[in-house]
Amino acid sequence: MIRDAEATRRRLLDAARQEFAAYGIAGSRVDRIAAAARSNKAQIYHYFGSKDGLFDAVFDEMCRGTVDAVPIDAENLPEYAGRLFDSYEQRPWVQRIAAWYRLERAGTADLMPVVLASNTAKVQAVAQAQDKGILPSRFPASVLLGLVVHLSGFWSSNVPEFDALVADRSAAARRQAVVDAVAALLR
Amino acid sequence: MIRDAEATRRRLLDAARQEFAAYGIAGSRVDRIAAAARSNKAQIYHYFGSKDGLFDAVFDEMCRGTVDAVPIDAENLPEYAGRLFDSYEQRPWVQRIAAWYRLERAGTADLMPVVLASNTAKVQAVAQAQDKGILPSRFPASVLLGLVVHLSGFWSSNVPEFDALVADRSAAARRQAVVDAVAALLR
Repeated sequence: MIRDAEATRRRLLDAARQEFAAYGIAGSRVDRIAAAARSNKAQIYHYFGSKDGLFDAVFDEMCRGTVDAVPIDAENLPEYAGRLFDSYEQRPWVQRIAAWYRLERAGTADLMPVVLASNTAKVQAVAQAQDKGILPSRFPASVLLGLVVHLSGFWSSNVPEFDALVADRSAAARRQAVVDAVAALLR
Repeated sequence: MIRDAEATRRRLLDAARQEFAAYGIAGSRVDRIAAAARSNKAQIYHYFGSKDGLFDAVFDEMCRGTVDAVPIDAENLPEYAGRLFDSYEQRPWVQRIAAWYRLERAGTADLMPVVLASNTAKVQAVAQAQDKGILPSRFPASVLLGLVVHLSGFWSSNVPEFDALVADRSAAARRQAVVDAVAALLR
């Protein structure tokens, strides 16, 4: 019984992740998610309270997944950015869901504790590396971390009109551009 | 009569820009735009054909506006990025509409000629500055331009959980971080 409940919850989260990545929060339909998960709307409200609650659960799990898969290495930020790039390649929904979150949620909801805690720990790691002289101090630690994460998402945040201009778009070449850009930032 | 038509078209574009920036393409409502512009749905279909046609007109005008307001200066890319930052401050809808465009349009519509032409001209300017040795050649011209534009939008593309960690968020400090990041990239 508990195993059934867990399996249903898992299917709902997977279906919701796909739906939210495609259509955002307002554009997603609870009945489409329920059908894709071979469940029903009542189950969604039972487990997650509301469509917003379901989105929060998806976003929270997604952030934990990134934090677990790509721990920060403040002493090698270019490679950290490269590993973030890899994680976006493997989980193409991450940048889309983050973009919907910024557009539809910023300023209207409580901050997500998991993201805040993770960012705070990363900023501390960067600040310590700055104190040791491993990283340059020209940017505050929070801004430096932000720039590195921002550069890691470079390729997933361009309009198609930009992509059309880039000749070599192999994953390896795109990864190298991210790593090189972060290395240049730290030079 | 022509002046009336132009004024109506102008009011529709302004109202649509606000609606699309807030709700995206799927989430925007033609009747809300018509009401805000003191017009009606028939006028929207008359001037723009469809909601998608109206979005195209808003996006096209927005891109032309950015190109006109911030011409590229390939010999001073840090300041170019700073001026792009200024333009986003003055026109806060730009980054939101670009983000909706990426999420809702990428891969589903023809590329916008105005954006393609503008990007092509900018890439040429960067390539020429690389040929003259004014800019480093470690990135292809298109990628270097993309990185500079990407960094100029740094502050408008973060989740609120990141913003909460940054102590000094004055416009001057945020602009300087963009200029410094681009300067570091070119060092």
